[in-house]
Amino acid sequence: MRMVDLIEKKRNGQSHTKEEIRFIINGYTDESIPDYQMSAWAMAVFFQDMSEEEKAWLTEAMVHSGDTIDLSAIEGVKVDKHSTGGVGDTTTLVLAPLVASIGVPVAKMSGRGLGHTGGTIDKLEAIKGFNVEISNDTFIELVNKNKAAVIGQTQNLTPADKKLYGLRDVTATVNSIPLIASSIMSKKIASGADRIVLDVKTGAGAFMKELSQAKKLAEAMVTIGNNLGRQTSAIISDMSQPLGFMVGNALEVKEAIDTLKGEGPEDLTDLCLTLGSHMAVLAGKAESLERAKDILQEAIDSGKAIEQFKVFIAAQEGDATVVDYPEKLPQASYKIDVLSEIEGFVSGIVADQIGTAAMLLGAGRATKSSEIDLAVGLELKKKIGDTISIGEPLVTIHANSENISEVKSKILKSYKITPLEVEAPELIYDVLT
Amino acid sequence: MRMVDLIEKKRNGQSHTKEEIRFIINGYTDESIPDYQMSAWAMAVFFQDMSEEEKAWLTEAMVHSGDTIDLSAIEGVKVDKHSTGGVGDTTTLVLAPLVASIGVPVAKMSGRGLGHTGGTIDKLEAIKGFNVEISNDTFIELVNKNKAAVIGQTQNLTPADKKLYGLRDVTATVNSIPLIASSIMSKKIASGADRIVLDVKTGAGAFMKELSQAKKLAEAMVTIGNNLGRQTSAIISDMSQPLGFMVGNALEVKEAIDTLKGEGPEDLTDLCLTLGSHMAVLAGKAESLERAKDILQEAIDSGKAIEQFKVFIAAQEGDATVVDYPEKLPQASYKIDVLSEIEGFVSGIVADQIGTAAMLLGAGRATKSSEIDLAVGLELKKKIGDTISIGEPLVTIHANSENISEVKSKILKSYKITPLEVEAPELIYDVLT
Repeated sequence: MRMVDLIEKKRNGQSHTKEEIRFIINGYTDESIPDYQMSAWAMAVFFQDMSEEEKAWLTEAMVHSGDTIDLSAIEGVKVDKHSTGGVGDTTTLVLAPLVASIGVPVAKMSGRGLGHTGGTIDKLEAIKGFNVEISNDTFIELVNKNKAAVIGQTQNLTPADKKLYGLRDVTATVNSIPLIASSIMSKKIASGADRIVLDVKTGAGAFMKELSQAKKLAEAMVTIGNNLGRQTSAIISDMSQPLGFMVGNALEVKEAIDTLKGEGPEDLTDLCLTLGSHMAVLAGKAESLERAKDILQEAIDSGKAIEQFKVFIAAQEGDATVVDYPEKLPQASYKIDVLSEIEGFVSGIVADQIGTAAMLLGAGRATKSSEIDLAVGLELKKKIGDTISIGEPLVTIHANSENISEVKSKILKSYKITPLEVEAPELIYDVLT
Repeated sequence: MRMVDLIEKKRNGQSHTKEEIRFIINGYTDESIPDYQMSAWAMAVFFQDMSEEEKAWLTEAMVHSGDTIDLSAIEGVKVDKHSTGGVGDTTTLVLAPLVASIGVPVAKMSGRGLGHTGGTIDKLEAIKGFNVEISNDTFIELVNKNKAAVIGQTQNLTPADKKLYGLRDVTATVNSIPLIASSIMSKKIASGADRIVLDVKTGAGAFMKELSQAKKLAEAMVTIGNNLGRQTSAIISDMSQPLGFMVGNALEVKEAIDTLKGEGPEDLTDLCLTLGSHMAVLAGKAESLERAKDILQEAIDSGKAIEQFKVFIAAQEGDATVVDYPEKLPQASYKIDVLSEIEGFVSGIVADQIGTAAMLLGAGRATKSSEIDLAVGLELKKKIGDTISIGEPLVTIHANSENISEVKSKILKSYKITPLEVEAPELIYDVLT
């Protein structure tokens, strides 16, 4: 088999066999296939797409390009959730204790990564003492005991995907549905998930700006999961504005605590209940989505959910008193309101501009070696549909420096205000199972 | 400017600016743009094509990626001919002395290269003493004195094209009209041509199997030439079977001598008269193609053309007596007829199979380090439309080894014979100016 012939085959719109896909991924992993052939192939895939079978084989080949995590020692059905990324997405922090509190095991492997704010691990480290550097054995023991634990990503998971993603990033081949779908699904499967719930974001702040594209991606991922024996559901949710009010590490922990207490923002709460219901049904903890939602709401109302969060924090050496005393979380030195210069209705909040503003404050990493400031971030005071008067605060900046002119101007630019009344956007556009 | 953005632009079907094309070609030449970005871009070009302007800018950028030859010291209009390659194409050996004999200066730079038979230089070296390792000054002096000279390619011509061609060859991006057209035209322009005549082959033995594709390529090249101030004509000629009867180095020299004496194969003679007429008109040596053809025919009939060949050979230290005594050319030890096993009409001769058979005998190089055997080759006895009986020779093999079973079987397989009468194919399909 020669890679040049396989590139030509895909270029001509033909489908690969399972053996051909394996040859490509194994060859790229062991470096017998060079970057320049892989990038030409990725561009051919961009134009010619892949069949359902090809997508599943590609995912499988990437899963087996490195280590896979064996979670069989954990009792119950392991359901993992994945979000395609957005701004101020606190769902993982809420969902882990929420679904664990009704008996769904959550064995979360998480990374730090780059972005507007830190990864789940960074956020949890805003809780004093919280330790993610635990052994595999401890991790499994904790999930069996408390139904939830989080561990840092140390294994050599899906190296083919890491390598291919790096290449796609510099060859304008990121935006290809079969390549995105197989990348996400391979990571979830290699991490040991039995079932998968996907939260595909759409709108100005999401990777998939168009709903039609988000749907295609969701369909591709659900089909891959189901074809590889991992029952998968997807919801398509709005990211035309940041989710919840908080963007920042400690700030999002605070918001998660509020939400677990039943006092969180409506959109974040709704999304967590929806995603949680899918997880509960897939894990066999409820017969229907409606029933699952009731059980989860009850867990919040009864205090079971927030208690579960305390247990989870304490089990990983964190200071669980932050739940009752959130002021113990890292606090920024300055809280500065950004005031509106015009009046009207908020019609849009360019979410990735808000994310960049948070990153400029130090909430996220611009490069791998950047240090994160866990205390800083943004607190949105107005969301789409809200009225706003001149001089009223749009956002409160939590900063550790007074030099925030660039952040302020980014925020002002990201808010779109019109004289006409505006309706708040729908939160959930579609559900795929 | 970032290459990733330019790849995305082309991927999205947008056109590049002149500055962008220069950035790409200069960056690729100086290695600031890596192979993996260039191959992704080439694949995007494959799918999205290029505008007329882009093609001209790409050609120009490749011309200026290395040395360019200055032929201004040669008197008259320098017209170069290029063929897109085929099997048994002896036209250059005929055309150089033919058009030189009517006063068109031929300053031919030629390479050795890989393929079924050797390059023009290899063929000329079948003439004892012929020397192509001459200085630039001698080269120019000889063209001014005798109207024709051939020199080996030594300069650093179009390095961007060489590098890109090598990359395209292993990334399934060879077959892209803008990339093929700019590659060919950049070499011709860098070699100092004022005007260009193109012979685009089509049919089973050609790179462009389909007439429609050959037309597109011809149009693209003519437009590039005209846009860059090099008046260009193209003819589209048949390569559904080898041209002439001979495939091999010394054998083709013999066939060229026959043709210059007016005793050559009809198809080769016709094609040379057609291409020669275009060269004569572009060089200003005739007002019309008809008049040019008459002048060239007269040069053959009067013996002027073959005399010119003698002068040309002698000027480069070759043994010009081969013209009158072609038996002085290298002779193979064995002449073995391949006999037909069926009777009927020849309906096709798969030209590239014939070429491969010649290469197996040693007539061409499979790799850069292969040695060429100038004496060996094939002499076709039957062409499309001819009748054939059982036991009648199809081809005479000229070999220096008796071990020719593979060659023989390739020849038998390449001949298509049917019981129904077949017409000989047209030779010239189209002319573009």
